[in-house]
Amino acid sequence: MLYGKSFYSPMSNNRPVSFLNGKPEQCLPFIDRGFCYGHGVFETARLWHGECPLWDYHFARLCRGADLLGIEIDRTVFSAYWQAFLAAVPVDGVVKVVITAGEGDRGYRQAGAGNANYVMQWFPLTDNQEVMALRQRLGVSIDLCRYRLPNNPILAGIKHLNRLDQVLASAELDARRFPEGLVLDTGGRIIEGISRNVFLRIGEHWLTPDLARCGVAGVMRRFLLERVFTRLALPVQVVDIPVDRLRDAEEMFMCNSVSGIWPVTAIDRQGSFEIGEQTRKIQRQLAGELACFAA
Amino acid sequence: MLYGKSFYSPMSNNRPVSFLNGKPEQCLPFIDRGFCYGHGVFETARLWHGECPLWDYHFARLCRGADLLGIEIDRTVFSAYWQAFLAAVPVDGVVKVVITAGEGDRGYRQAGAGNANYVMQWFPLTDNQEVMALRQRLGVSIDLCRYRLPNNPILAGIKHLNRLDQVLASAELDARRFPEGLVLDTGGRIIEGISRNVFLRIGEHWLTPDLARCGVAGVMRRFLLERVFTRLALPVQVVDIPVDRLRDAEEMFMCNSVSGIWPVTAIDRQGSFEIGEQTRKIQRQLAGELACFAA
Repeated sequence: MLYGKSFYSPMSNNRPVSFLNGKPEQCLPFIDRGFCYGHGVFETARLWHGECPLWDYHFARLCRGADLLGIEIDRTVFSAYWQAFLAAVPVDGVVKVVITAGEGDRGYRQAGAGNANYVMQWFPLTDNQEVMALRQRLGVSIDLCRYRLPNNPILAGIKHLNRLDQVLASAELDARRFPEGLVLDTGGRIIEGISRNVFLRIGEHWLTPDLARCGVAGVMRRFLLERVFTRLALPVQVVDIPVDRLRDAEEMFMCNSVSGIWPVTAIDRQGSFEIGEQTRKIQRQLAGELACFAA
Repeated sequence: MLYGKSFYSPMSNNRPVSFLNGKPEQCLPFIDRGFCYGHGVFETARLWHGECPLWDYHFARLCRGADLLGIEIDRTVFSAYWQAFLAAVPVDGVVKVVITAGEGDRGYRQAGAGNANYVMQWFPLTDNQEVMALRQRLGVSIDLCRYRLPNNPILAGIKHLNRLDQVLASAELDARRFPEGLVLDTGGRIIEGISRNVFLRIGEHWLTPDLARCGVAGVMRRFLLERVFTRLALPVQVVDIPVDRLRDAEEMFMCNSVSGIWPVTAIDRQGSFEIGEQTRKIQRQLAGELACFAA
């Protein structure tokens, strides 16, 4: 593994390399509103040869979420912290950026909260390159979670720190059998995976769930919609997808910005899928655009 | 103000006296699941002459929430930390206890997470005794929040760390005019205040919202239901309350375990209330049971 100009050994004491506001730090005050109330936003991004391939999209989502939560991101300050961080960590892996509403007084009201806190962490990839490539090639078998996402149009789409929905959904999974789970909303609509968005093909059309009521609007989802499907001239719709439409699906995949595209080969007790030629085309197109996702 | 056997000056550097796992500490690792995902529960309790008046209720809710979130509370360990903490802080004020799922690997799944982390903090009362007594006597004027609580029967009732609902609702309030806001769910039912539960009287009956779909089931609410209303032989029902029933309400109050009972004298743009004789009886009964809530 290649390293940047780093004085910090990665994962010392089994902890990631971590910065707070541009300086090495492992901890955050208890009075930070991110800890107290989940009053913050985050991004988890692939780091590849010293850069995050979809960084503009990550940063745009970070800004949109922060704005919604009343957190002021100082772009000049952020940029300085980000450069200092990138210079200190290995050039490949996963980076996580958390921006919180800062330290505050007791109570939900933000009055009195100070400046945003900027947390940046580097982690090694959970799966090594070979395992990642295998999953992209062979696909995955997933579970259908019983836990349902509540509808909240205000918070839908953004990646905030209130993630008990995902914690509870993932707690259901038998992790040795299923690396992912499909999650529905309380209305029985397909929304997303636990850490991934979902696309499926029914007849001529690719569909991905509308995330206006709940779910996280993934960066990879956006890239596929705006770039990959477009360049391949494959028709794709953002729509409500009742779970019973699964039986009409001919191809299905999940995606995120860390591990790329995983074809779904089976949903436990629901049926199985072939990995179709269109999924392969989408994977190849993605790999052509962003080399880190080549299988 | 009286002090326990303390070596720590309260609110040093404008921060509360804080303990982590039985020892003075101000900070928590970034990899704690409480910070990452809000994977934890908390309680905020009145401290009065060295004790929390409703501690059994607080601890019961803490345990119920932790159990739901897969967090194991070691009662012996907790008790030791709690005693060490109480011995070190002033005997009056507000204490906050947070129990998180502990440090974990990256990812929503809890596998690999260590022991729970126990955070304990002491704060001075936000309002001094005189202001608190004034609010109990004169009542408060509150706002009606536009932000609606999403329905999530799994998480309803417990006091977990995912509190963006309250952060967003409180952000609406004009704090100089309104110390509280009434919050509805997406179905237009009255649920709670931002930091308080709500009771209202219509005709012969007191009503308090059913919290089976959303809301925090307050410790003071429970005490009033189980002890105060019972002893006064006042009929009270836990029911769904559509917001349009407000126009039939003759008395209304909000309550929590820090500031007791606040009569509501007006809801902005919705109407006003007299502070009725029954509200006064309930306040007197509460003060008789728990002296710290005497106005």
